[in-house]
Amino acid sequence: MARNRRGKERKDRSGGAEQLPWARVQNPFPPLQLLRPDQLDAIDEAAFTILEEIGLDFLSPEALPVLRAGGAAVEPGSQRVRFGRDVIRHWVAKAPETFLLKAREPVHDVGFGGTEMVFSLMASAPNCSDIEHGRRPGTFADFCRFVKLGQTLNAVQVFGGYPVEPCDLPAPTRHLDCQRAFVELGTKPVHAYSLGRTRILDALEIVKLGHGLDDAGLAADPRIISIINTSSPLRLDGPMIEGMLELAPRNQCVVVTPFTLSGAMAPATVAGALAQQHAEALAGIAFYQMIHAGAPAVYGGFTSNVDMKSGAPAFGTPEYFRATVISGQLARRWRLPYRSSNVNAANTVDAQSAYESMFSLWACVAGGVNFVKHAAGWLEGGLVCSLEKIVLDVELIQMIRQCMEPIVVDEDSLGLDAIREVGPGGHYFGAAHTLARFEHAFHAPLISDWRNFESWREAGSPTAMQHAHERAKAFLDAYEQPALDAARKAAIDDFVDRRKREGGALAA
Amino acid sequence: MARNRRGKERKDRSGGAEQLPWARVQNPFPPLQLLRPDQLDAIDEAAFTILEEIGLDFLSPEALPVLRAGGAAVEPGSQRVRFGRDVIRHWVAKAPETFLLKAREPVHDVGFGGTEMVFSLMASAPNCSDIEHGRRPGTFADFCRFVKLGQTLNAVQVFGGYPVEPCDLPAPTRHLDCQRAFVELGTKPVHAYSLGRTRILDALEIVKLGHGLDDAGLAADPRIISIINTSSPLRLDGPMIEGMLELAPRNQCVVVTPFTLSGAMAPATVAGALAQQHAEALAGIAFYQMIHAGAPAVYGGFTSNVDMKSGAPAFGTPEYFRATVISGQLARRWRLPYRSSNVNAANTVDAQSAYESMFSLWACVAGGVNFVKHAAGWLEGGLVCSLEKIVLDVELIQMIRQCMEPIVVDEDSLGLDAIREVGPGGHYFGAAHTLARFEHAFHAPLISDWRNFESWREAGSPTAMQHAHERAKAFLDAYEQPALDAARKAAIDDFVDRRKREGGALAA
Repeated sequence: MARNRRGKERKDRSGGAEQLPWARVQNPFPPLQLLRPDQLDAIDEAAFTILEEIGLDFLSPEALPVLRAGGAAVEPGSQRVRFGRDVIRHWVAKAPETFLLKAREPVHDVGFGGTEMVFSLMASAPNCSDIEHGRRPGTFADFCRFVKLGQTLNAVQVFGGYPVEPCDLPAPTRHLDCQRAFVELGTKPVHAYSLGRTRILDALEIVKLGHGLDDAGLAADPRIISIINTSSPLRLDGPMIEGMLELAPRNQCVVVTPFTLSGAMAPATVAGALAQQHAEALAGIAFYQMIHAGAPAVYGGFTSNVDMKSGAPAFGTPEYFRATVISGQLARRWRLPYRSSNVNAANTVDAQSAYESMFSLWACVAGGVNFVKHAAGWLEGGLVCSLEKIVLDVELIQMIRQCMEPIVVDEDSLGLDAIREVGPGGHYFGAAHTLARFEHAFHAPLISDWRNFESWREAGSPTAMQHAHERAKAFLDAYEQPALDAARKAAIDDFVDRRKREGGALAA
Repeated sequence: MARNRRGKERKDRSGGAEQLPWARVQNPFPPLQLLRPDQLDAIDEAAFTILEEIGLDFLSPEALPVLRAGGAAVEPGSQRVRFGRDVIRHWVAKAPETFLLKAREPVHDVGFGGTEMVFSLMASAPNCSDIEHGRRPGTFADFCRFVKLGQTLNAVQVFGGYPVEPCDLPAPTRHLDCQRAFVELGTKPVHAYSLGRTRILDALEIVKLGHGLDDAGLAADPRIISIINTSSPLRLDGPMIEGMLELAPRNQCVVVTPFTLSGAMAPATVAGALAQQHAEALAGIAFYQMIHAGAPAVYGGFTSNVDMKSGAPAFGTPEYFRATVISGQLARRWRLPYRSSNVNAANTVDAQSAYESMFSLWACVAGGVNFVKHAAGWLEGGLVCSLEKIVLDVELIQMIRQCMEPIVVDEDSLGLDAIREVGPGGHYFGAAHTLARFEHAFHAPLISDWRNFESWREAGSPTAMQHAHERAKAFLDAYEQPALDAARKAAIDDFVDRRKREGGALAA
């Protein structure tokens, strides 16, 4: 996105609003080093101690032979598994440092690792909200609306899970409708939930059909990303294990993310919570490599804390900032791509939602996060996907992207001729140097209102939330369903119909 | 602010709300290097060209002999002054790299330069606003209320100018009431406006009396900070020059800040606006050193841009971020303390005000800003000081300060015993390690509302702005006027009475 290309790039006016073009974003800023190497050593060492002495429970008997074969110590008659540090080092080293996640259209492929920074739509909210319809449990119509908005917004690069749970669909077949909608309504890479073997196999099949691949074609590249949340502390659930067992041999991508809320599921210190997170992430990634060496696995960090007085989870706090940055230091020492999130605990799209999100995003930038999950839409600690918050977050992502643009310092940009022309006491409004840059000189906001107070009041004193609502509607109006080969579409529909007749996940 | 001291530090409950203690904040993060050294060279070179070829107008004949004596070339019969690069280098090198700005109470002294980060109250707004009384031109009562709030808030360290203009006071004597109020109502360092000789001399006298000093005592340390805004492009106004001529011999501090809005008072490119800012700042600082070598001078950056479609100024944008970070690179190469600001263009304390301010503050952190002017309260591009925004900004400053705290990684904080105790599948709510940290483990927000949606709705769905309003009132209730020696107070009152009888600034 060099400055001299912006004129062209800014031509994208989907939704009647200027937006930055889709791009593989590269973060040029050196990661912040909050901990010294000896302190990182101490966290590595603590994680090794946890893995060697305490171990994790793997809550599926299917995992145990894989773990045994990989060199882990399975406690007889139990699901408790301990890992020597050499076993962890051996297997984690097999995960790729960088990889591509493929989209239905190659133009939407994204890279993981290195300086790549990928932004995904909010995921897994039980509720949704917007100014017009209020806060409510999600429906499939809401789900589809969010997918369409995510497809239209260039800043959104991955569907990171169901933006909202379609509570009106029967649970056993919901995944069939949702995975089909991802592939039909959008062309960007998709997530599938590792909630048991059946759901993940169905998702794999739908992506295979939608992308027009055979089994070998599917296994050639990662095309599904699946979040593997450990059940902290120190457990990996059966449904997650089943997903991993199916995804790894097909070379698909998992993001092993302990949800280590400090003071609840992890110690009430940043260092302690990170030690536990680190142990769980390394164990999960080692296990994934034991299933299929070289399958792409991302180091996920989700360490925040609970408010000790109320037990409420807190997000976008100084603790979150520090945990996010340090987790990046840990991930990079293990040469793993790194995931964190754009989160907040606000109940509406007010100043709190903005500054907590900004702290999260700043942490993602400073921490060298490669995959920013929940990058757009997250509200209420994850209980709501907000239509307005999606647009607000896209504003923030666009601003961050522009901060990262290279700065041109040359004769033309230094503008000495213009400074000579204007001279002391003049102004630049009519200078040739200014007029040549009239249209695309500066950041054009989606929702920031820069009118003076009087004009703003005459317009009804709209808040940023109201502007975001209007923008969201305009972007939705501009949505066009991307073309999908009729044969592929028919194959998906046939598959979904058959699987529904079979009962979906009930038939597992 | 090491973690193990937080228990003690959090005991400050002024205003019924926990706040961080007053502290000299050190920014431990390495400054971001947005430009390469050769690009910085190019900006230096462009500034030299401007100073050598175009020059600046110094709009007071008093400046010209000083400039001539310092080696600058004054165009005969004109106020146009050109500076050779050697002259600039010679004089700017005489400004101190670090210094202390003294307060009425030594506990409130602040450091400039190095890793110091000083936050000052919003300044120079013509209007003020709060939820209760709405938006209105400022009065002296509003002025005093803001000063009291600034004194109570530990995150606010300097009164950086009139938080709001007391429009109900006569202009010629207004400065007497305001400078007296700063010294009587607060103990933190103060600003005085360089709006002509009389006002600055009166301010110096009031500080001298209030701090109990004689002339030599006053000149021993900087106790007044004064912003010198160049009248961009390339002019320095007479009243500013008069202030500099009085402040420098008394060893007081100026912050030379070109207000270079890209596209209006400076070229419509970041590089061009920075070249012009750099030329103006270096010329102003060199002039200050010519008056009195060694007088403390701060490099001020205030490069943002206008919205090219409407002409409205924009703040907290990507351009602002980049100009702020690069200005820090420039200031540090000249070994000068560096000033920027916490700004936004929002009309209310909504999400926009928060994210534009966060972009500004993030830029200040990444740019190694030493003096954050307008750190608390700025709204509407500087046209309003908002009661609620002050508290919101203090929340942000406190969060930033906590992100900067050193992280303890030791046996105790790693908590392996707690992880052993809890084991796979347990929780940490009742663990001894958690209970020992119950009260002070994590960031305690001033206004962030972490309740769940139902509790929040039952409480009337308060926004962050409403919480900030309640907090502000509580902090104001907790204000206690600091003791001031009766003889000093009487001396100030006598001085102010006499100067009012003389007509104040009219008598100059």
